[in-house]
Amino acid sequence: MTHERNITRLDAFTYRKIIQDDPVMLIPVGAIEQHGPHMPLGVDMMLSTKMAELVAENINALVGPTITTGYKSQQRSGGGNHIIGSFGFDAATVIGICRTFVREFARHGLKRIAFINGHYENYQFIYEGVDLALRDLRGQSIPDVMLLSYWDFVTEEVISGLYPDGFPGWDVEHGGVMETSLMLEYFPDLVHMDRVMDLPAAALPPYDLLPVDPTLTPESGCLSSAKAASAEKGAILADSIVSGITDAIRGRFTM
Amino acid sequence: MTHERNITRLDAFTYRKIIQDDPVMLIPVGAIEQHGPHMPLGVDMMLSTKMAELVAENINALVGPTITTGYKSQQRSGGGNHIIGSFGFDAATVIGICRTFVREFARHGLKRIAFINGHYENYQFIYEGVDLALRDLRGQSIPDVMLLSYWDFVTEEVISGLYPDGFPGWDVEHGGVMETSLMLEYFPDLVHMDRVMDLPAAALPPYDLLPVDPTLTPESGCLSSAKAASAEKGAILADSIVSGITDAIRGRFTM
Amino acid sequence: MTHERNITRLDAFTYRKIIQDDPVMLIPVGAIEQHGPHMPLGVDMMLSTKMAELVAENINALVGPTITTGYKSQQRSGGGNHIIGSFGFDAATVIGICRTFVREFARHGLKRIAFINGHYENYQFIYEGVDLALRDLRGQSIPDVMLLSYWDFVTEEVISGLYPDGFPGWDVEHGGVMETSLMLEYFPDLVHMDRVMDLPAAALPPYDLLPVDPTLTPESGCLSSAKAASAEKGAILADSIVSGITDAIRGRFTM
Amino acid sequence: MTHERNITRLDAFTYRKIIQDDPVMLIPVGAIEQHGPHMPLGVDMMLSTKMAELVAENINALVGPTITTGYKSQQRSGGGNHIIGSFGFDAATVIGICRTFVREFARHGLKRIAFINGHYENYQFIYEGVDLALRDLRGQSIPDVMLLSYWDFVTEEVISGLYPDGFPGWDVEHGGVMETSLMLEYFPDLVHMDRVMDLPAAALPPYDLLPVDPTLTPESGCLSSAKAASAEKGAILADSIVSGITDAIRGRFTM
Amino acid sequence: MTHERNITRLDAFTYRKIIQDDPVMLIPVGAIEQHGPHMPLGVDMMLSTKMAELVAENINALVGPTITTGYKSQQRSGGGNHIIGSFGFDAATVIGICRTFVREFARHGLKRIAFINGHYENYQFIYEGVDLALRDLRGQSIPDVMLLSYWDFVTEEVISGLYPDGFPGWDVEHGGVMETSLMLEYFPDLVHMDRVMDLPAAALPPYDLLPVDPTLTPESGCLSSAKAASAEKGAILADSIVSGITDAIRGRFTM
Amino acid sequence: MTHERNITRLDAFTYRKIIQDDPVMLIPVGAIEQHGPHMPLGVDMMLSTKMAELVAENINALVGPTITTGYKSQQRSGGGNHIIGSFGFDAATVIGICRTFVREFARHGLKRIAFINGHYENYQFIYEGVDLALRDLRGQSIPDVMLLSYWDFVTEEVISGLYPDGFPGWDVEHGGVMETSLMLEYFPDLVHMDRVMDLPAAALPPYDLLPVDPTLTPESGCLSSAKAASAEKGAILADSIVSGITDAIRGRFTM
Repeated sequence: MTHERNITRLDAFTYRKIIQDDPVMLIPVGAIEQHGPHMPLGVDMMLSTKMAELVAENINALVGPTITTGYKSQQRSGGGNHIIGSFGFDAATVIGICRTFVREFARHGLKRIAFINGHYENYQFIYEGVDLALRDLRGQSIPDVMLLSYWDFVTEEVISGLYPDGFPGWDVEHGGVMETSLMLEYFPDLVHMDRVMDLPAAALPPYDLLPVDPTLTPESGCLSSAKAASAEKGAILADSIVSGITDAIRGRFTM
Repeated sequence: MTHERNITRLDAFTYRKIIQDDPVMLIPVGAIEQHGPHMPLGVDMMLSTKMAELVAENINALVGPTITTGYKSQQRSGGGNHIIGSFGFDAATVIGICRTFVREFARHGLKRIAFINGHYENYQFIYEGVDLALRDLRGQSIPDVMLLSYWDFVTEEVISGLYPDGFPGWDVEHGGVMETSLMLEYFPDLVHMDRVMDLPAAALPPYDLLPVDPTLTPESGCLSSAKAASAEKGAILADSIVSGITDAIRGRFTM
Repeated sequence: MTHERNITRLDAFTYRKIIQDDPVMLIPVGAIEQHGPHMPLGVDMMLSTKMAELVAENINALVGPTITTGYKSQQRSGGGNHIIGSFGFDAATVIGICRTFVREFARHGLKRIAFINGHYENYQFIYEGVDLALRDLRGQSIPDVMLLSYWDFVTEEVISGLYPDGFPGWDVEHGGVMETSLMLEYFPDLVHMDRVMDLPAAALPPYDLLPVDPTLTPESGCLSSAKAASAEKGAILADSIVSGITDAIRGRFTM
Repeated sequence: MTHERNITRLDAFTYRKIIQDDPVMLIPVGAIEQHGPHMPLGVDMMLSTKMAELVAENINALVGPTITTGYKSQQRSGGGNHIIGSFGFDAATVIGICRTFVREFARHGLKRIAFINGHYENYQFIYEGVDLALRDLRGQSIPDVMLLSYWDFVTEEVISGLYPDGFPGWDVEHGGVMETSLMLEYFPDLVHMDRVMDLPAAALPPYDLLPVDPTLTPESGCLSSAKAASAEKGAILADSIVSGITDAIRGRFTM
Repeated sequence: MTHERNITRLDAFTYRKIIQDDPVMLIPVGAIEQHGPHMPLGVDMMLSTKMAELVAENINALVGPTITTGYKSQQRSGGGNHIIGSFGFDAATVIGICRTFVREFARHGLKRIAFINGHYENYQFIYEGVDLALRDLRGQSIPDVMLLSYWDFVTEEVISGLYPDGFPGWDVEHGGVMETSLMLEYFPDLVHMDRVMDLPAAALPPYDLLPVDPTLTPESGCLSSAKAASAEKGAILADSIVSGITDAIRGRFTM
Repeated sequence: MTHERNITRLDAFTYRKIIQDDPVMLIPVGAIEQHGPHMPLGVDMMLSTKMAELVAENINALVGPTITTGYKSQQRSGGGNHIIGSFGFDAATVIGICRTFVREFARHGLKRIAFINGHYENYQFIYEGVDLALRDLRGQSIPDVMLLSYWDFVTEEVISGLYPDGFPGWDVEHGGVMETSLMLEYFPDLVHMDRVMDLPAAALPPYDLLPVDPTLTPESGCLSSAKAASAEKGAILADSIVSGITDAIRGRFTM
């Protein structure tokens, strides 16, 4: 039987007992961001949380509170933060949240922490938050912290299998085949394939422009079409990701 | 039939359509904080989210993303932030999050926003966040923002009915009869009444001490006993709160 | 004969000599805020300073520089910061000042500090300032810091004696009977009872609204009428407060 | 008869009436800092406040709340912030306070503000605070703000008269003849000439060193001897300063 | 004849005259970071400045002051900021610098700005700085700002020509063939090919670890070997980059 | 033969070898600021860098990266930051940069650091940056840091020799005889004496005014005329400054 691993649903006494065995703490990080007409605003937080919970089962880890306050959607990876439906937090806020979680988990006695990121734009700010937390903790017991984005664990084999016509890159995957397939695998009730707008992938230049030129983002808000998404692909992706992250954490944190 | 009101589960196209009718946006604010051996760490975020969703049904409102990053637990209202299981965010971070939500919802075109607070310690920092957001928005369209803590809507009649021996005050209610009864009403599976520690209410002085004197917090982490909690009391409290908040928002935002 | 206890009027050599005996340091915190037509803007800083000086005599303590830069006046406790005559500092500034005082007094070698707050809105920001200072001081000698608001030391007996028709609560006391009576006791020259506007107490809802709805604050800027104020009541209140704080500090700091 | 000009002792109704005539608002800025064995810690705040009040009488101005939270004492102008008895605020805090006062006085409708600085180290941080406030106010009504340090208004004639052997410079005047004479003029009860330590002026190099080399500061904490101070010199200095500032404000703010 | 385009070497009168014609302003961004035993710490600032100057000639643009204060070196793109010789600025500082440049150039009247980034880790912080500057400028004239990293302009053809055995990715290029070849092209005197350490490319995992595991960075501090670098490759790369950026800016800013 | 001393042109391996001998690290600080029609915007950064390099030769020191992001030009020392061609960084940014350099050089193992300032307005912010860095480093190895502005090392003899008609003060020297002569000595190609505007020295009042009154700054942007500048004077000044700083660092850091 699988016991509860998400600490928001655990009581403090049970939590304190579990952490005496030095489990890894997984912190999902997402965003609230438009993902086209066929998926909900919470995609990034839902996927990172679900993956963290599945990895947690594999390695007997815990899952910390999901960070939902993602950095601003950028046009080349999320369509842009001018779109109504996306919420963009300033760098200082995202940094502050990650910094606090590391500091607080260190106070609780956790020794190994992993951030499971599900929103492309967050990564550098999570990094800064962790770095500042470790500076804060100097002279005290410092946990080992791993930082990763889940799509970096899809293997080359999976990519070439799922994208026979060539892989367009993770950035234009916003609202596309990968995210939609994963949502179909994990949260099928929240996906409406009939509402997918089958538009050509965004042809984005190799630079950002601010203020954003809204015409560069497809009308759907997605950077590529989700039409080819399916639950089967989702299962393959999910398996690749969850086992990849599981192995990475096991390997690094020698469990 | 009740449609979805929590925007994290809505897609952006539907969201944009709904907000053209100028609904009120309710933002639940909670914390991740120990609540004794009988309730989970997520009590404050769960209760505020649930209440917001129920109020939303009454007034055809939307519910925004729940803010889970609460200010530090203070001894006189939450047992203290030295306790393992509580997560305390700095003022700057809590302020930054609330400030962003107001600014982003204003960008989306929302005209009426209400923060539904479920963690005593948060209030002043929500206030500062909203105040700074309105300063940021000067010269633009400024939404009306209401700020409230849910327990302020329990009526005197309900209090005297539920606490025949006298009401100890909302602050020592941490993990006590009110919160536990509400959890029994809304999330009975997450409450373990058999684990309640039936200790005397905390005898806290009329001041704070930092560093905290841990001996002043009962061993349970709760400031009063939850033994007298029940789903029935929870229903009465819930009804009082939800209808109170509903009336307040209706009255102020004339709907 | 009473010697000087306010360190702003002591020279550094005398100060250094006195603190070798490990006195408690009392830090008054106030605000510059409108208090109706009958009392000056400096009420909060004057009262907290005066009370600190009287407590200091009782326990042979010192009084530090008065913090006059209070947090924004809020409508339900001070009428609102939209009123001309009130000065509202951002949270970050109030926090920074309190943080510095704790850090600097710790550097001086003080071991016991008490903040005597006289402005309702300040409390949480003083708390954050102290908490951050103690974090700054980790690894060094950390003083014990007490935080209190003076009205929390008025006893139930005094309240029921002074408010025979029922006590309206400390928040609506802004510019009302308590503050005015205390000013009559301590600074009678600065009170003009003939200018009191005898308006009904403000009927404020159990929430805040931003931007403030100015019509909710009585024209006087006071939340209840000061008409029943008197020097006699002031003496009773003052005695209750000063002896209450004296006892609390003595009890906690075992002197 | 001279009416009250310090707004902390004025009520809000009177304040609002006076400012309809567009008076200049003078804001004294000081510090809490050691000034040797013969003068109190509050010298800088006392002198700047007193001078502001005297200038205010001349030009029918108001005096705002005194800013007492000065920047860190620096060795070449105040002996250094390592000395017990001095309180050093971070730049961010000093800036925040000045920024708020400008912003709040602008909200009140003031059109002309002058900062009267009495603590050498403060100047650049007052400047930054004012500059940021004017940025905040862009698009609104912006007051004219004058910034000055009082010693810059002592005339050459006065200097050569009072220092027949050559003027050592304002920086080493810390706790020396000028400050002590001014205190003798304005607050004789707080000066103890019998406690003056008649040491040679500090021989400070043309650079700062951090951490401070404490041996460079005379044992007195004063950078030059106050032995030659007198109330007569104080009167001459005071007259030169107050009339100089009066003329400067009149000239600039054409009154 | 080529006239001066770097504004640090232009006088203000000439600068003011030139900007009346609305030139594009290019801002090079680099870092001070170890680049192995064969290249200087200033590689990133030197390359971005040189490229900006060459692009400026093509499009008659100006080059602004080079930003040398780069974000912390990260292990997967720069070896890690634990290495002696690298300087890592906090996110807040990098953001503050970029924010100011946009705000100040906007004050000067510039309408089109492009950041030319030469340090992988900087990008997100430049983005945040620009985004905040545009928020600051709301209600004023807002320039169009382009953000790019120079390696994104190396064409696929160039890559496959220069890396016949397969391209390892830009991140492990730190101190490798590309950077070294570019330095050989532009600053040959500062490259010591005889000191290149010909080590295997770093085998870095798809995640970061903090504190860094120093054993993952090759002893050289470079993530791949520069042995195959040459001035010829440098010329090809340089040509691809400079013409790519030139075309991109021309295309976007229609000149 | 003189070897390279500017670490931006040194490789990391050489740098690490040199610093094992505990050299002094000199950090030049300048600004990008208008200096009239006859000198480039980079004067302050060029002069401080050049002087640092010359001092470094004398004492076998290293020169760190030049800080070019100076604080806002102030009217009484730089003409004012309203002038197009000057770039003014906020206090927080200047402080952050200096703080990082001290912290990073301390991490590298440097024990003695000197800031060589060439922009009048920077000084207090460099001071704050250093002070905060030393606070950050508490509990670790703390370097000795010297802070100086180069003009404080011009001797009285040199001044009276170069200014036979009386020295107007360093502040109005902005773009005047001293800076121009030094530029003629070090960077003659960047000075255009034929473009000097020979205007009377600015008659600036003993206070600042914000917003700036632009009429108080001469049309040239210089606060006094550079007409009397010459390479000969530059050589005398340069010699006085470089030997003065050399002696000061030698004396303090006993080398």
